[in-house]
Amino acid sequence: MWGELAPVGRDRASGGYRRHAWTGADADCRAWFRGQAEARGLRYEVDRNGNQWAWLGDADAGDAVVTGSHLDSVPDGGAFDGPLGVVSSFAALDELRRRGARFTRPLAIANFGDEEGARFGLACVGSRLAAGQLSKAQAHALVDADGVTLPQAMERAGHDPDAIGPDPERLARIGAFVELHIEQGRALDRTEHPVGIASAIWPHGRWRFDFAGEANHAGTTRLVDRRDPMLTYAATVLAARRAAEDAGAVATFGKVAVEPNGVNAIPSLVRGWLDSRAVDQDTLDAVVTAVQAAARERAGSDGVGLTVVRESFTPVVDFPHALREEIDRILGGSVPVLGTGAGHDAGILSAAVPTAMLFVRNPTGVSHSPAEHAAEDDCAAGVRALADVLEGLACRSH
Amino acid sequence: MWGELAPVGRDRASGGYRRHAWTGADADCRAWFRGQAEARGLRYEVDRNGNQWAWLGDADAGDAVVTGSHLDSVPDGGAFDGPLGVVSSFAALDELRRRGARFTRPLAIANFGDEEGARFGLACVGSRLAAGQLSKAQAHALVDADGVTLPQAMERAGHDPDAIGPDPERLARIGAFVELHIEQGRALDRTEHPVGIASAIWPHGRWRFDFAGEANHAGTTRLVDRRDPMLTYAATVLAARRAAEDAGAVATFGKVAVEPNGVNAIPSLVRGWLDSRAVDQDTLDAVVTAVQAAARERAGSDGVGLTVVRESFTPVVDFPHALREEIDRILGGSVPVLGTGAGHDAGILSAAVPTAMLFVRNPTGVSHSPAEHAAEDDCAAGVRALADVLEGLACRSH
Repeated sequence: MWGELAPVGRDRASGGYRRHAWTGADADCRAWFRGQAEARGLRYEVDRNGNQWAWLGDADAGDAVVTGSHLDSVPDGGAFDGPLGVVSSFAALDELRRRGARFTRPLAIANFGDEEGARFGLACVGSRLAAGQLSKAQAHALVDADGVTLPQAMERAGHDPDAIGPDPERLARIGAFVELHIEQGRALDRTEHPVGIASAIWPHGRWRFDFAGEANHAGTTRLVDRRDPMLTYAATVLAARRAAEDAGAVATFGKVAVEPNGVNAIPSLVRGWLDSRAVDQDTLDAVVTAVQAAARERAGSDGVGLTVVRESFTPVVDFPHALREEIDRILGGSVPVLGTGAGHDAGILSAAVPTAMLFVRNPTGVSHSPAEHAAEDDCAAGVRALADVLEGLACRSH
Repeated sequence: MWGELAPVGRDRASGGYRRHAWTGADADCRAWFRGQAEARGLRYEVDRNGNQWAWLGDADAGDAVVTGSHLDSVPDGGAFDGPLGVVSSFAALDELRRRGARFTRPLAIANFGDEEGARFGLACVGSRLAAGQLSKAQAHALVDADGVTLPQAMERAGHDPDAIGPDPERLARIGAFVELHIEQGRALDRTEHPVGIASAIWPHGRWRFDFAGEANHAGTTRLVDRRDPMLTYAATVLAARRAAEDAGAVATFGKVAVEPNGVNAIPSLVRGWLDSRAVDQDTLDAVVTAVQAAARERAGSDGVGLTVVRESFTPVVDFPHALREEIDRILGGSVPVLGTGAGHDAGILSAAVPTAMLFVRNPTGVSHSPAEHAAEDDCAAGVRALADVLEGLACRSH
């Protein structure tokens, strides 16, 4: 199963994956999903928002147990972020059938569309649309780097863009959603446990810092006559690291745009994006406030203008305690519980559906990179844990 | 004259000029030059390297006095860098004719092609080719951002790219070259003098710093597990400023490229370009050594790899003392003498021809920007000074 999916959308030079929404590589991934569903006699459907479902039992009976994740990737992403959850879902169903499990609730495996947002810049488009957190009009306004709109891309891929929008009836059929995912950090690596349970998704946001200086000749302008925004940007990058260290949070400047970006030109504008996440709202606020204060102070001494715009924000998601405790009990107790700074479809859906996540150990913590990796034994342990959870939830008497 | 040239190649939004080599705007500038030459009864010619000449008197007589500059611009450049020298040359000739000057040496006004290198990335292509500092093969390998090669661009503009190359016969006809240019700094602004004489062009170079880290998820990777090259880059930007301050030099990071440049991705690579210039070679070496040492130390503590490549280097150009002193004497003595960090055609030609430069006061020091400006009175003083110099050199008995 893993072997069939491995070459799809892989870039030869980087070894990373480029499975972006509504591209050819995405279509190949989706065809693979449909094949896996049909090979197992599951009822296959695509919802109005492009999410794929494979049903065992009567979907309309309600109180279904759903598992799954996504198949798309970031640019030059790894093999595990997303696909591990979908592959493990099918493998867990195979395991349950080997065990002769008798299902008392409907079961579905899902592949949510455009989780990474690599092409249109917004993450979790499929689950956001279904949960009503992204309107049809907002989705129709999304444009990729080549100027192709989301509805154009959907249409070219054979999906009707006019049908997208909130899908409360479909979500109402779900009694519990469990997403298995590779851990994107090294918390489990410091334990004896290959699998953990998510406690919460940290609040996180993106802030755009525009540092406006004065374009000038790099060879002839005296230092004292400069208003060089690259200096202010550099000081802010270092201040963000210090603020995150002080607060036990994370803060990153990973993207920058410079005008005119010439070797012999002092920039007129440096635009940097801060991504910051923390265990709770107060901590996150403290980090961002400290970074802004440092940027503003340095901007003053550099003679540089500063504008800060919050481009996106997602509040904390606390996964429901009852479901977490039930999963811990099913898995024998004492399973490590960990927070995460990454967004997931499970985080979006948790507003509408009782939701939980399982994490599989990542020995290097590396993610969103071709070097992303989990050990085969740990992946097998993840499949067994997911099978146990599905069995405990969907095969119990209730 | 100035009014005719003002709208050519001007971008409406920025107010800056985009007169890049062998484009339509460049052709318009060149047509303007030809028109000015012919209106004054000068003999117009284009040399094999695309430089334009307007001759008064017998070019073949030798020992000619040549003045001029360039008409092309950096992206969103100002109106003065280049054109002020060409316009002042024609105006100075008009002034000399009003004075009834009698020429004892041939005189020419030149417009050198592609001085800024905005399109193909290499400055002073026209003068470098003529002086044999750029080979035909090297020039043919130049490519613009759209993949158009220099020979293709020349051919489309009606110039034979096979004819380019060293032109020693043409340069041998020149007894002195004097280039008038707007000052690109504020040295004259601190004096009572609207015009100064160049002493030297500082040695300068470009160094590419590649900071190699590890791509990872900005939301989930603990700070201690990161190898974030943006931090190393930021520390290096600030170190360059300090090193330049300490040495009385200039050092600038004006261009940066980041991979993958995603808001939620710790970069795998940050590439920054250092432009540095100083009054002499030892000072420049000290600055670059200090920046590299600081970068290497920080790279070590960030777990980041560092490679530094010197991409270009131009040694100091000392303009000949004899010609400088003669010009100072012609202008009445006590004319301010100033060095400059900017490259010029005069710097290239000085290897083959006795060369001098006049600078016209720039009250803000701003250059390579739409805000570049010189006062009308100072421009008039520049024309008078250039006329005096040409009269002193070309009308004296010798």
